Amino acid sequence: MSASLRSIQKSSFCSSVSNFRGVGVSMVQGASRGIGLEFVRQLLEREDKGHVVATCRNPNGATGLLELKRKFSERLNILQLDVTNERTIEASALSVKENYGSINLLINASGVLSLPNELQPETTLNKVQKSSLLRAYEVNAVGPIMVIKHMWPLLKAREGPGNERDFAVVANLSARVGSIGDNRLGGWHSYRSSKTALNQLTKTISLEFARKKDPILCILLHPGTVDTDLSRPFQRNVPQENLFTKEFSVHKLLSIIDGVKRSDNGKFFAWDGQEIPW
Amino acid sequence: MSASLRSIQKSSFCSSVSNFRGVGVSMVQGASRGIGLEFVRQLLEREDKGHVVATCRNPNGATGLLELKRKFSERLNILQLDVTNERTIEASALSVKENYGSINLLINASGVLSLPNELQPETTLNKVQKSSLLRAYEVNAVGPIMVIKHMWPLLKAREGPGNERDFAVVANLSARVGSIGDNRLGGWHSYRSSKTALNQLTKTISLEFARKKDPILCILLHPGTVDTDLSRPFQRNVPQENLFTKEFSVHKLLSIIDGVKRSDNGKFFAWDGQEIPW
Ligand SMILES: NC(=O)c1ccc[n+]([C@@H]2O[C@H](COP(=O)([O-])OP(=O)(O)OC[C@H]3O[C@@H](n4cnc5c(N)ncnc54)[C@H](OP(=O)(O)O)[C@@H]3O)[C@@H](O)[C@H]2O)c1
Ligand SMILES: NC(=O)c1ccc[n+]([C@@H]2O[C@H](COP(=O)([O-])OP(=O)(O)OC[C@H]3O[C@@H](n4cnc5c(N)ncnc54)[C@H](OP(=O)(O)O)[C@@H]3O)[C@@H](O)[C@H]2O)c1
Repeated sequence: MSASLRSIQKSSFCSSVSNFRGVGVSMVQGASRGIGLEFVRQLLEREDKGHVVATCRNPNGATGLLELKRKFSERLNILQLDVTNERTIEASALSVKENYGSINLLINASGVLSLPNELQPETTLNKVQKSSLLRAYEVNAVGPIMVIKHMWPLLKAREGPGNERDFAVVANLSARVGSIGDNRLGGWHSYRSSKTALNQLTKTISLEFARKKDPILCILLHPGTVDTDLSRPFQRNVPQENLFTKEFSVHKLLSIIDGVKRSDNGKFFAWDGQEIPW
Repeated sequence: MSASLRSIQKSSFCSSVSNFRGVGVSMVQGASRGIGLEFVRQLLEREDKGHVVATCRNPNGATGLLELKRKFSERLNILQLDVTNERTIEASALSVKENYGSINLLINASGVLSLPNELQPETTLNKVQKSSLLRAYEVNAVGPIMVIKHMWPLLKAREGPGNERDFAVVANLSARVGSIGDNRLGGWHSYRSSKTALNQLTKTISLEFARKKDPILCILLHPGTVDTDLSRPFQRNVPQENLFTKEFSVHKLLSIIDGVKRSDNGKFFAWDGQEIPW
């Protein structure tokens, strides 16, 4: 960890763990850009007191987060986390434990659809490479699951006044193209199958939490086609009315998260609240 | 490739490509043991003329296949193929091309549920390791897909007399635990998600073949709980009547393959012909 990063992390907390009783603490993983960054912004703006832990691969270069940090000061805590590097996940979990004791909401927003020279949305089986399949799986499926594994002991229902529910929530950003039942076009093999696997892993975890009566609900979210770096190269064929701003999409997704019921555990919802078939 | 292996492969073909017009050629990938080996046996036994290409990681140690070779002689061709080593897939495709010109049926039977020190069916999220998730994905999802990629140009409907259908068939061995909709117990994260991804990848490929009017149908098969090395450590809780012999399961699966219709393309069937939800 670089010295400057350590200083960002150090400067972010000025309260002891007990100060967070009754105050919501959310963690947004994959928060440097796009949908993740917008979740951080809306979570901070809609509450007076709630704290947000925003994680990203390169905090020093996360200009959007650094801008929010200037505005929201100690209510925003920026941590370094690369989902492909388990030590950064463990370090973030330790930092959260020491500084907040627990979190009430975990949003896994990280994801990749294309990576220069490594991963391209495939248009045909002929272009499918083993290395791309594995890379997409590592980032999009394995990554969020390892984050949940290490954050699990810290996921607690919010305590004290202002607490309207007795469970914590984990929301994983999936994608409609991860649905097998809804797959009508084919293509995008690496991305599709990584999101399908994320769906299965999230469902699997949700069942364990339920069986152990651990008050944590897990859901999967499809944000719609949202105007971000991820979708930009593929927006040409998207009708304007189906291309959402990140503000709109995140507003919708937050209202789903706010309304989550126990019976929603393990389910896959689109931005409009409709369930998506597996 | 070892000299002895080369000699096994050389000795297996004594006919030129044109001799295979009108004769069924099937490929069973993952044929050293268990369900794959039983597919080879039943395919050879039920026809007088059909040829089978059986691939496995270690032909010299595949005693079951070597025994069948003694009985069926040139109708069985054993090739070395490890799904995690793409060069062995390419070499097998080249060998099939040179010696048969095409195949009518490809069965991907390889799969792993546990590997000493590498992969164990996980009973809790706490035991889920990144390395196990990736390993199961590599063998169970990526492997069969790379085999289909390289065999694609060779998959042709059987020609001439005795041809009862105008398409080739690809059957991938999946597992009911890969179903998200049917997941009620949780656990087995690595295996489950690898099979779920295999389902999505198979569906994705089936759509491309259909769109290009390439006469190849792809299906996914659940063999039931079958008494093989794979299931042996986990049979304790399986009622006797639900534990199938490989003879029974493969007989059922072959009748599904025999009866495949165009409308079955991309679907997931249990041993009894029932569709399994995604
Ligand atoms: N946009 C859409 O239309 C759409 C549609 C369906 C689903 N989704 C899903 O929604 C989520 C957010 O997508 P987006 O549109 O906001 O994409 P984006 O603008 O490209 O942002 C992706 C985010 O993921 C982070 N990330 C990538 N690799 C990472 C890693 N190894 N470790 C930690 N973080 C990593 C990126 O960080 P860096 O800045 O460090 O690269 C970035 O913050 C993704 O899961 C995506 O699959 C998006
Ligand atoms: N048995 C069941 O109850 C059950 C239930 C549901 C689904 N299935 C599926 O049915 C299929 C067959 O299972 P089974 O019960 O016959 O298992 P098995 O007896 O353990 O045989 C597994 C086969 O896969 C091969 N294999 C493993 N790794 C390979 C690799 N890297 N490259 C090529 N081949 C490899 C093995 O070859 P080696 O001899 O070289 O190891 C062996 O031939 C699997 O896909 C399994 O997931 C089985």
